[in-house]
Amino acid sequence: MNIRFYHAKILLSEAGHAFSILEGELWVRGTRICYIGECADSCEIFPKDGPIIWDREIDVNGNLLMPGFKNAHTHTAMTFLRSDADDLPLSEWLNCKVFPKEERLKKGDIYWLARLGILEYLTGGITAGFDMYLSPQEMAKAAADSGFRMVLTSGFNDFVSSPEQMEEDFYAVNEMSSLTSFVTGFHAEYTTSLQNMERVAALAQKLHSPVWLHNSETRQEVEECIARYGKTPTQLTDELGMYGYGGGGYHCIWLSEEDMAVFQNRKLYAVTNPASNLKLASGICPAEQLLACGIPMAIGTDGPASNNCLDMFREMFLTAVLPKLLSMDASSMDALLALSMAVSGGAKAMGLSECDCLAVGKKADLILIDLNQPNMQPENHILKNLVYSGSKQNVKMTMVDGKILYEEKTFHIGVSPEEIYQKANEVARRVRGGT
Amino acid sequence: MNIRFYHAKILLSEAGHAFSILEGELWVRGTRICYIGECADSCEIFPKDGPIIWDREIDVNGNLLMPGFKNAHTHTAMTFLRSDADDLPLSEWLNCKVFPKEERLKKGDIYWLARLGILEYLTGGITAGFDMYLSPQEMAKAAADSGFRMVLTSGFNDFVSSPEQMEEDFYAVNEMSSLTSFVTGFHAEYTTSLQNMERVAALAQKLHSPVWLHNSETRQEVEECIARYGKTPTQLTDELGMYGYGGGGYHCIWLSEEDMAVFQNRKLYAVTNPASNLKLASGICPAEQLLACGIPMAIGTDGPASNNCLDMFREMFLTAVLPKLLSMDASSMDALLALSMAVSGGAKAMGLSECDCLAVGKKADLILIDLNQPNMQPENHILKNLVYSGSKQNVKMTMVDGKILYEEKTFHIGVSPEEIYQKANEVARRVRGGT
Repeated sequence: MNIRFYHAKILLSEAGHAFSILEGELWVRGTRICYIGECADSCEIFPKDGPIIWDREIDVNGNLLMPGFKNAHTHTAMTFLRSDADDLPLSEWLNCKVFPKEERLKKGDIYWLARLGILEYLTGGITAGFDMYLSPQEMAKAAADSGFRMVLTSGFNDFVSSPEQMEEDFYAVNEMSSLTSFVTGFHAEYTTSLQNMERVAALAQKLHSPVWLHNSETRQEVEECIARYGKTPTQLTDELGMYGYGGGGYHCIWLSEEDMAVFQNRKLYAVTNPASNLKLASGICPAEQLLACGIPMAIGTDGPASNNCLDMFREMFLTAVLPKLLSMDASSMDALLALSMAVSGGAKAMGLSECDCLAVGKKADLILIDLNQPNMQPENHILKNLVYSGSKQNVKMTMVDGKILYEEKTFHIGVSPEEIYQKANEVARRVRGGT
Repeated sequence: MNIRFYHAKILLSEAGHAFSILEGELWVRGTRICYIGECADSCEIFPKDGPIIWDREIDVNGNLLMPGFKNAHTHTAMTFLRSDADDLPLSEWLNCKVFPKEERLKKGDIYWLARLGILEYLTGGITAGFDMYLSPQEMAKAAADSGFRMVLTSGFNDFVSSPEQMEEDFYAVNEMSSLTSFVTGFHAEYTTSLQNMERVAALAQKLHSPVWLHNSETRQEVEECIARYGKTPTQLTDELGMYGYGGGGYHCIWLSEEDMAVFQNRKLYAVTNPASNLKLASGICPAEQLLACGIPMAIGTDGPASNNCLDMFREMFLTAVLPKLLSMDASSMDALLALSMAVSGGAKAMGLSECDCLAVGKKADLILIDLNQPNMQPENHILKNLVYSGSKQNVKMTMVDGKILYEEKTFHIGVSPEEIYQKANEVARRVRGGT
């Protein structure tokens, strides 16, 4: 498809965090952006090609085209547990509610539960997810069938999956579709034996892959790791040789200064998950301190069992304001840093170097934000409006890989949302009922 | 207008915080709810009246009808400062950004700025606001012209308004429209001399009116009040005789146990404003402790200069999760308490006893929530979905006083949103430019 967007505000970002807004046109040919500028005549831009035959020409009416949000940590298929286990401590939530109910899942369930989560991503302008969960191949198929971009890692631990399974998933998912990719990972230190962690490190070395894990999400996790090994999860995993090809941690709340030095030296990414961390009373990620150390950051929603929604607007707002609470200083953490994390930061963490910004040659993973809504007026500062006042309500369109998957509340993802709701409710009912 | 909603889920609430959901019909005659139940034949329900002639019959398609949200603390017309003064400490924000720019407002500006804020309320299912700002009569006219319900109080302090002006506003606003009402109030202890506070107390006694103020929003405010008077703002205002007819405080973060006893004894309401309190690094309201003391609570967005959006979904989420962070216990504050505060709690604080729940004879201030959206699926628990996962995106319709003011992204408020955006941008540009 060739699609021309005109009368647009276009969010550009240069090296670092400098954003600018260009008023003009953005053209998509196939899966990529082929032009951004003020001109309207394709023969002038591509004199050798002749006029581009447009499949659609969309008058954007002064609204904002921007790169899609990258949800850099999630468990998409946990939609079945949404609002089924709230207001509980993390350990009780995980051990008494999540793990037992996951055992009741059957083959095929993950596929439909993931398709539900992907629908929700599209409504909120999320164009790629970084998913850790059971059955990565089912999950990846749900993404590919939806036309959605998904990076997957393994939730391997002492009870789930294996290094052999992870290796199989690595090849299967990386080869499944241009939209899906896989990197090595495991659930967390507290669910994985030393021997199994050593096997992860060996596999990452063999596959030349980064390693990702839940890291320092709770104070208890870090204290127990120190009691077991005399070192923090970050130090332990580093010494096990996990990070020869990089990687990073999800949550990253209770990092010591030595841990931050490891992140810095190994060029590891820290992904913050603020809504989930509030809801599970895990704490506040010291994002400002991490950025000051030069640690690259991204933002994730975490899964729908703990958040409970998959909304990067909520996460951006929290990423910008929680450091203010932590320091009791309202000037902490400029909003545009949160925006940068939610877009290019996520793309870099996920290895999606072709999806980090709007530029010629990049993948057309982009969204259209409605500025003609009361929450985005007046236009004192469009980007601060976006971070502090924006909402899923402002998402008019979500495009992944050059295809419009969501537009004006309508999905174009191959099946009807009603079918997905029905399948997801069937699974949720079965799991609740224990049958 | 007579409007019949059918195929609805209807949120009912009994004494206390017990919610239930009835599947059936809700009928509106004029400004009030005249029937809730399963029956579909008006002649059976009202045998003396003959059949009701419906102006509209709306198939709700299994979605949720619920009372509108009550925004119990706001400065609606501060839309002109949205995203114009972010990431600054509260005192600098107020003294260097807000107060100087407010001086540049001209007569008539407040009206249009308020109309913009009211548009935003409608998009988020807010059916009533409790507003403190300059020019209450302009503000009230904006509400009445929009068909929106608004309770107003005075922002009186040493620099703005006067007791005489407040008394004039009291009569003018209370008589202006059945949608507008006025109670006495003043900005805060730290902006108001002892003599002026004594004049507020005398006026409240004379008018038999409750008194409202910003109370204990920052630690500095409380410490400085103690340094000035040897007592907290709560103790001081109580001893000045402010609360003969009740009232309450906005923010209520740094209350002592003695302060809580005053709230309890005087039956004062505490209104929490969590998003604003995070963004301005003011702290976390000890909501769970306040509720445990039996202090009635409500939720407000605060104004768009500090929040920056007017979204009760964001506020409900934060009201439910911030107590978990404060106590480091994820079982703190059940989500349904936050929902109750956002609906009936607000109505009670604002004196809107006819708008607190859906019941026969109550005012038809109600909203329709789209459950057929991915963030509200599966339906493990509809109300926890609403608090933890709901968004303005789910608001299909907002009705105030029996009139549909917003439906499927279209406003019915007398003027076009474009005209309101244009006027608000004109004011914002003028104030930014200093002309």
